[in-house]
Amino acid sequence: MAREHHVAIAGATGAVGAEFLRILEDREFPLASVRLLASERSVGREIRFRGRDHRVELLSEGSFDGCDIAFFSAGASRSRAFAPAAVRAGAIVIDNSSAYRMDTDTPLVVPEVNPEDIDWHRGIIANPNCSTIIMLMAVAPLRSLAKLRRIIVSTYQAASGAGARAMEELLDQTARVLRKEPVTPVAFPHPIAFNLFSHNSSIDETGYNEEERKMILEARKILHDDGLKVTATCVRVPVVRAHSESINVEFDGARPSLDSVRETLNSFPGVALVDDVEHNHFPMPLEATGRDEVLVGRIRNDLSNDNAIDLFVSGDQILKGAALNGYQIALEWIRRGCPKGSAR
Amino acid sequence: MAREHHVAIAGATGAVGAEFLRILEDREFPLASVRLLASERSVGREIRFRGRDHRVELLSEGSFDGCDIAFFSAGASRSRAFAPAAVRAGAIVIDNSSAYRMDTDTPLVVPEVNPEDIDWHRGIIANPNCSTIIMLMAVAPLRSLAKLRRIIVSTYQAASGAGARAMEELLDQTARVLRKEPVTPVAFPHPIAFNLFSHNSSIDETGYNEEERKMILEARKILHDDGLKVTATCVRVPVVRAHSESINVEFDGARPSLDSVRETLNSFPGVALVDDVEHNHFPMPLEATGRDEVLVGRIRNDLSNDNAIDLFVSGDQILKGAALNGYQIALEWIRRGCPKGSAR
Repeated sequence: MAREHHVAIAGATGAVGAEFLRILEDREFPLASVRLLASERSVGREIRFRGRDHRVELLSEGSFDGCDIAFFSAGASRSRAFAPAAVRAGAIVIDNSSAYRMDTDTPLVVPEVNPEDIDWHRGIIANPNCSTIIMLMAVAPLRSLAKLRRIIVSTYQAASGAGARAMEELLDQTARVLRKEPVTPVAFPHPIAFNLFSHNSSIDETGYNEEERKMILEARKILHDDGLKVTATCVRVPVVRAHSESINVEFDGARPSLDSVRETLNSFPGVALVDDVEHNHFPMPLEATGRDEVLVGRIRNDLSNDNAIDLFVSGDQILKGAALNGYQIALEWIRRGCPKGSAR
Repeated sequence: MAREHHVAIAGATGAVGAEFLRILEDREFPLASVRLLASERSVGREIRFRGRDHRVELLSEGSFDGCDIAFFSAGASRSRAFAPAAVRAGAIVIDNSSAYRMDTDTPLVVPEVNPEDIDWHRGIIANPNCSTIIMLMAVAPLRSLAKLRRIIVSTYQAASGAGARAMEELLDQTARVLRKEPVTPVAFPHPIAFNLFSHNSSIDETGYNEEERKMILEARKILHDDGLKVTATCVRVPVVRAHSESINVEFDGARPSLDSVRETLNSFPGVALVDDVEHNHFPMPLEATGRDEVLVGRIRNDLSNDNAIDLFVSGDQILKGAALNGYQIALEWIRRGCPKGSAR
C-alpha cells in the first residue's frame, strides 16, 4: 500500500484553504491525517472533514510535529514566519503565497509545465500566482511548436483573488447597488459592483503593479527563459472566482499553424479547448468555475504581426489558480518518490 | 443670430437616441425644432423635451421634409433604408450605425481627431464604432509625438453597447442570480451577470469578430493610415455603460517620453488624465459614466518592447462612444459653415 501522509493546512479557513480541504475530501489522496491551522481569530472553529469535526488550531512554530506535507495559504508574512519551522519539522511545504516564489533556492511549479523542478527543492515548493498559472497553462505548451519571444497579456481577474471577504463584498455590494443604496468598499479600494479597476497592488518606478511584475518574473522562472519578454496589464472585474486573460503570443520566428496550436493545446493535460466559432462559444469565467481545466479559445493568427497569435483563456482562480495546483504539486512530489530537500 | 436647425432623431426611443435628446436639451444648441422618429412599436409615445411633449412618429422616407440635421441611431438596416431619403430632403445625416462607415464616399469622424473630413461629405457623415472612438481618443493624440506602428487592444465593453434592453438584462439578471433564481439570456447569447464573454458579433474566416474588424478598419480610415497594424480582442463585461480598453501602442521607432505622452494627452480636448499611481487611482467605467471625457491612465513604458507604451482607458459608451460624438459632429459641421455635400 502507498504510504499515507500527515497533512497540515495553514490558512484552513480562507477561500483557498477551504478549497484545498474540499479537494482532499473529494479525491483519492493517501491521507493519514489533516491538521487545520489558522490565526487567533479562527481558532476553535470546527470544520467537518471526511465525516468528523476538526478543530482549527493556532498556526505556530510548534504546529508541524509529525507533519509530512504543509500547505500554506495564509499570506506571505505568515509563510515567512512559519514555513521554516514546518521544514525543520521535516515537512515539505507547498506555499501558495508570494513569499518564496522568486527565491533562487525554491522551485516554482506548475506540475504540467515544470514538474522536474520539484526535485531540487530545499523544503519549500512555491505555488505560482494565479494569473501566471492560468496564462502558462495556455502558453507553455506552445513551446513544443516554436520558441516564445513575447507575451502581451491583459487580465480580467475575479474577486476571489483578493480572498473570501472580497467575494462576499462583490455579491453584497452588487445587491446594494441594485437596491440603490450607497456602498462603501472595504476589501477593495474601489467599488467592484458593475465596475472594474486596475489591480490594487503596489506600483513601482516602472509603473507596473505587483501582480503584473509577478506575471513577468514568475513566467520567466517557470519556463527557465530569462529572455522571455512579457508585458501585462492586470484588471479586477466583477466576476466571482475565475480569471480570464486576453493573450497575444509572439514567437521567435514564424508562428506555428493554428491546427498545430489547437492540437497541442487539446492534448495538453489540464487544458480544455473551448473554441466554437460557429456558436460564438469561447472561454467564460462562469463555465471555468468549478472546473480543473483552463479553458482556451479565440485562437487566431494576429493580423498585425506574422509571428504572433491571439488567445483568450478562463480558469478557476481558486482551483488551478491556487488550491488545485498546490494539490497537484503534492501528488507529483509523491509520484517522484517524496524527494527530501536539503534543509535550509 | 446664428441660424437655428431643424433636427430629426431616427431611433429616438433607443439608448443612444434618448442620450442625444438629453444632450440637445442640456446644452447650447441652435435648435429650431426636433422631430422624434422610431419604428412602429414606439409610434405614439410622448417624450418630454424642453418643457413640452413630443409625439414619436413613424420613421419613413417622408419623415425628413424641412429637416436640416438627421441623427440616425436605429441600426444599420434602417440607416440603409432611410438615410438616402433624408439626404434627398436636404438634411445632413449623422449616422451612428455601421451602415456607411467604410463607404469611400462617407467621412468617418471623431471631431477632435479628423474634423476636416467633414468637408468632403456627400450627405452622410458616419459616427465610428464606440470602441474605436474611445481607443482613438487616447491613441490619436500621440501621433504628434511619433508615428504609430501597431496597436494591440483588449476591450472591457459595457452592456450598453448592445442597447437599452441589454442594460436592463444585466441588472435584472444580476438580481436574479443574487436571489439564486435561474436565468435565461435574451439580449445576449450568454449570461452576463458575474460573467464575461467574447463579443457576440459574427466571426469571419480570419477568426476576428465584427467588432474587432471595425476597430481595425475604422482606426485606419479615421487616422488616414492604411499601414497601421492593429489587433483587437473584444470582450463584453458586466458593466452598465462605459467601455474600458487595455492598449499597447508601438511606435515606428523610439517611443516618446512618458512626460511628453502625459502632456500631450492632458492638453488634448476630450481626454482627462486619471493616472494617480500613489493612490492606485486609474480609469474606471463607474467614473467615466456620465462624463464627456475619455479617461486615460496606467501610462507606462512597455518592459517588453523599447518602442511601445501601455495605456488603460475608460469612456462612456453612450456619450463619447455614440451620442456625444454625433452631437459634436453636428457642432463642428455648423462651425465649418454647414458645408453641403454633393447629392448622391
